[in-house]
Amino acid sequence: MLEETNAPVISFMSDFGHEDEFVGVVHGVIATIAPGCRIIDVNHSIPPGDLRAGALTLMRAIQYLPSGVMLAVVDPGVGSDRRAIVAETSWGHFVGPDNGLLSPAVAMVGGAKRVVSIENPDVMLPSQGATFEGRDRFAPAAAVLASGEASFEDIGPMVEPDSVLPMLLPLSEISDSSVTGQVWWIDIFGNVQLNISPEDLSQAGMYSGGQVSVRVDLTEHTVAWVLSYGEVEQGHPLVHVDSSGLIALAVSGGRASDYFTLSSGTTVTVSVARDD
Amino acid sequence: MLEETNAPVISFMSDFGHEDEFVGVVHGVIATIAPGCRIIDVNHSIPPGDLRAGALTLMRAIQYLPSGVMLAVVDPGVGSDRRAIVAETSWGHFVGPDNGLLSPAVAMVGGAKRVVSIENPDVMLPSQGATFEGRDRFAPAAAVLASGEASFEDIGPMVEPDSVLPMLLPLSEISDSSVTGQVWWIDIFGNVQLNISPEDLSQAGMYSGGQVSVRVDLTEHTVAWVLSYGEVEQGHPLVHVDSSGLIALAVSGGRASDYFTLSSGTTVTVSVARDD
Amino acid sequence: MLEETNAPVISFMSDFGHEDEFVGVVHGVIATIAPGCRIIDVNHSIPPGDLRAGALTLMRAIQYLPSGVMLAVVDPGVGSDRRAIVAETSWGHFVGPDNGLLSPAVAMVGGAKRVVSIENPDVMLPSQGATFEGRDRFAPAAAVLASGEASFEDIGPMVEPDSVLPMLLPLSEISDSSVTGQVWWIDIFGNVQLNISPEDLSQAGMYSGGQVSVRVDLTEHTVAWVLSYGEVEQGHPLVHVDSSGLIALAVSGGRASDYFTLSSGTTVTVSVARDD
Repeated sequence: MLEETNAPVISFMSDFGHEDEFVGVVHGVIATIAPGCRIIDVNHSIPPGDLRAGALTLMRAIQYLPSGVMLAVVDPGVGSDRRAIVAETSWGHFVGPDNGLLSPAVAMVGGAKRVVSIENPDVMLPSQGATFEGRDRFAPAAAVLASGEASFEDIGPMVEPDSVLPMLLPLSEISDSSVTGQVWWIDIFGNVQLNISPEDLSQAGMYSGGQVSVRVDLTEHTVAWVLSYGEVEQGHPLVHVDSSGLIALAVSGGRASDYFTLSSGTTVTVSVARDD
Repeated sequence: MLEETNAPVISFMSDFGHEDEFVGVVHGVIATIAPGCRIIDVNHSIPPGDLRAGALTLMRAIQYLPSGVMLAVVDPGVGSDRRAIVAETSWGHFVGPDNGLLSPAVAMVGGAKRVVSIENPDVMLPSQGATFEGRDRFAPAAAVLASGEASFEDIGPMVEPDSVLPMLLPLSEISDSSVTGQVWWIDIFGNVQLNISPEDLSQAGMYSGGQVSVRVDLTEHTVAWVLSYGEVEQGHPLVHVDSSGLIALAVSGGRASDYFTLSSGTTVTVSVARDD
Repeated sequence: MLEETNAPVISFMSDFGHEDEFVGVVHGVIATIAPGCRIIDVNHSIPPGDLRAGALTLMRAIQYLPSGVMLAVVDPGVGSDRRAIVAETSWGHFVGPDNGLLSPAVAMVGGAKRVVSIENPDVMLPSQGATFEGRDRFAPAAAVLASGEASFEDIGPMVEPDSVLPMLLPLSEISDSSVTGQVWWIDIFGNVQLNISPEDLSQAGMYSGGQVSVRVDLTEHTVAWVLSYGEVEQGHPLVHVDSSGLIALAVSGGRASDYFTLSSGTTVTVSVARDD
């Protein structure tokens, strides 16, 4: 007999990697405190300490995760006096360091209603060192919130939502006939996501179905803006709206990051293609 | 009190890797649609777009996975007009692209009884781009089938099982005293699986317990056909029947891929060892 | 409605990596035999065959894992005549090869009360090859023990706990004013754990809050012994008690393994800093 149960879910993202036992130990801590909770590993390959990559990952993923608890740990300041917080939102609870990591995703789901600083020693593990707060401070807070063993107020003192550190994400610049932005993400397939929306391009006079000019450094490429990879020949570049709803560069059957020689943060200008 | 529950299981294989959040997002989609289902991650390190490696992985793994739903996504043609299908078999449902990926494993469990094309928009996620069908089309189909929320017929129109794209896997060539095949898989330990069965070798006059000659390019190695690694000295090569039931090359305490200088697809000839 | 269930837990550590389907297949075997059990993946990136790295990982992790079954497979002697064992402890059952891998963690939780050799064919999978005992012998034993389908005595004949292979871990050497040890672990962030405890240092006249001298080969570094990374300037080295309770070298915002040019096993001497 198959039987379904709806366990509370903790989604878990970090820069812990898969080389060490960090992820497994956090699972163990959660399973010990809250044995009935389920954990979804969103991604643990955020480059160590890369807050922006972590924040962008959260933004892309959050709408596809079941509401509940988001445990996110990218924490170059562990062991400093940065706060450890829980933000209460309409999606659920975001648990992590107060270093900007959570802020864009929290804003995306409507902002934080209330925020607490994780300070109650009863919801922490005693630890010998002060370097693995993912295990000793964040995971226990996530576990007691998900299981309902503690209430939001039990976690620690309320802090002003406005005092939470924001993350400044660069905006694209839109002119009459071009949009200048930068590379936000290169995925395992070499697809290149820009911080440019289709609306940005349309505002500058570019439309799906047409040709645009993509400039990287001093090189210009004329590229078709299509709906999907299959619309251009193998090995040819394309511009399209990707699975996050943003403008991305791709190559049919190839790697756009190699084709355009791009890395995270590179400036890219997309402009109306000239009729030659 | 410990309590067991038998949740429906979705086994999930892909070439999404662990660098990005793709695997986590698919877990999130499934957990949202079918919160009571369990997911087994079979392997997400299939080389990007490598249909043969994906198909061979499915063939090796399928008999060890609990029957239910197999969600398999290696999909270089995403965004083209290749179909998205579900094949109903005696093992359960196989969900993935119609590009040959599923075919050997489906054949291995007795073939497809019925096949549908995933086209019902009610069992898909609305998406802005057309590039992440693992999330928007395959995962929702797997989730509704596993949870029983939709029936097989609800997924889309029936298609002819015979119209599903097969995958042509190379056969070994058996002569009087030799078998010529190729490398199908090199695992993390450097063990080398060939597309040669023990029966193939016996047909050509070779038997477990004896010596065989292994030829790679112009180099011949005389190697013992043994039952397990421990039967030869450290650093020595061996031929054995591996955990998939196929002939494999190994080195006791070493890496056969280095010893024999082999990579995936290399031609290997195994022949009766000459008495010198 | 959210509903919690307390499923039996199998914690699983191996050197199988994430490139192949080995981990997924073991999950499949366990889910088939014991569908109600939960699996925690502790770490599968132990360097292939590295028993010491595996044993140290188990020692660090065990106290954070829910009691139940520990399935640990690092097994360079698979296919030799080394035994496959289950050790019964106050924490739960440890399942793995009798090659020293389990011994330090078993000792840490109070030692083995009873030990059996896994020999009952009814609790093994039939296999064609003898090379994947993780799948055919260890996983089934773990599954039947976790689910209660078989009792400890059913697994195979009792063996003397004293006959289980120990693992000799190097001890630090303490003199009047210095402690000489070695590198036990370098994590993904470049933090360097030594086989030296804070008590060792105190016995040699060093105390938290002071300065110590760290010697690697012929190079000496004067380093502050602090409580956390935040107490030294970015880019500066530090000595601290790490999250396992051992002495570790770190660099604030940097990688200690690079700073001190260290790899696993390197000798390090920590001594009382001289007043210059």
